Amino acid sequence: MIVGDLERLIQLLARLPGLGPRSARRAVLQLMKKREALMLPLAEAMTKAAVSVAVCSNCGNFDTRDPCGICQDPKRDPKLLCVVEDVADLWALERSGAFKGGYHVLGGTLSAIDGRGPDQLNIGRLIERATKRDNGPAVEEVILALSATVDGQTTAHYISERLADSPVEISRLAHGVPVGGELDYLDDGTLTAALKARRPV
Amino acid sequence: MIVGDLERLIQLLARLPGLGPRSARRAVLQLMKKREALMLPLAEAMTKAAVSVAVCSNCGNFDTRDPCGICQDPKRDPKLLCVVEDVADLWALERSGAFKGGYHVLGGTLSAIDGRGPDQLNIGRLIERATKRDNGPAVEEVILALSATVDGQTTAHYISERLADSPVEISRLAHGVPVGGELDYLDDGTLTAALKARRPV
Repeated sequence: MIVGDLERLIQLLARLPGLGPRSARRAVLQLMKKREALMLPLAEAMTKAAVSVAVCSNCGNFDTRDPCGICQDPKRDPKLLCVVEDVADLWALERSGAFKGGYHVLGGTLSAIDGRGPDQLNIGRLIERATKRDNGPAVEEVILALSATVDGQTTAHYISERLADSPVEISRLAHGVPVGGELDYLDDGTLTAALKARRPV
Repeated sequence: MIVGDLERLIQLLARLPGLGPRSARRAVLQLMKKREALMLPLAEAMTKAAVSVAVCSNCGNFDTRDPCGICQDPKRDPKLLCVVEDVADLWALERSGAFKGGYHVLGGTLSAIDGRGPDQLNIGRLIERATKRDNGPAVEEVILALSATVDGQTTAHYISERLADSPVEISRLAHGVPVGGELDYLDDGTLTAALKARRPV
């Protein structure tokens, strides 16, 4: 007996990651209680973002401008190119503030199971960006910031193969103990990697 | 470096129950990827529901009609009135299909800590509905389907006091072992209640 308009809203909300039917119902009740303060502003923000925000044709980031703010930023180092799977990873790296070069968003990883080949990813454009030597400063290093999963590492391997003939340097993120992590909870793979890559104090 | 329009959308989404900043970011990325299929329909459904759905002036349910579909339904028993804290509880009872009377949504419980007194709840209208004897069939039984918490039981007690002088019968939901529940995991209070209210097989 939930009225149709709310039922539809619940069904759509339940398709968001992290929300199921139950939490979508709770969210809708919350929205109905805060109609002016939350529900209408949220609908408006959603419509606005859907119209104003687009994919950067250069790097794959989301922005209202194309090329995006990062690609246009003259203070960022054009010699460094950091390859990520998803915009979420780009946001995570930006939050850390540790990287001041350019990005390239692949839009996923190669995956035999999901049938994602190189053509489904933004790889052609990456090779083009990494190897172009015509105008502007050239890319000197490509940092593969991909997941430490089988698919992520397959993708990293494929990209390094494709760039093998170019003079560009290729690196990947270090494996090791997460900062704040306890050894006791770490898997063997990470411990082995951390031990192999040990550094003098 | 998240663009302003997305940042605002993330902040608003993070205010929904069950979503924090991290899951709101994931939700926004999902929305951006399914702009036509999910983001715009969701914004539209939200705007539509905010405009079309209102609180039933009789019982406090949410509906596009006023009085709501349940209040208008001639097949439902007008002699039974089920008092719930929230529309979520009304939905839960409707999903069970076990109740075919009318509802009354209080909009919360009395709470000394949160400073909610009888005037903040929809109690006046409840007394009116439960005691009116002028036109139409009168309410014969008020079922207090309130939480088995201190606040819920305080509220139940207050309502029964207010209705003490009326001929209306007052009942509450049974306490006992949840169907499918294991004794081992039950608290002492529930076990004691279930034992006291034991029934012949």
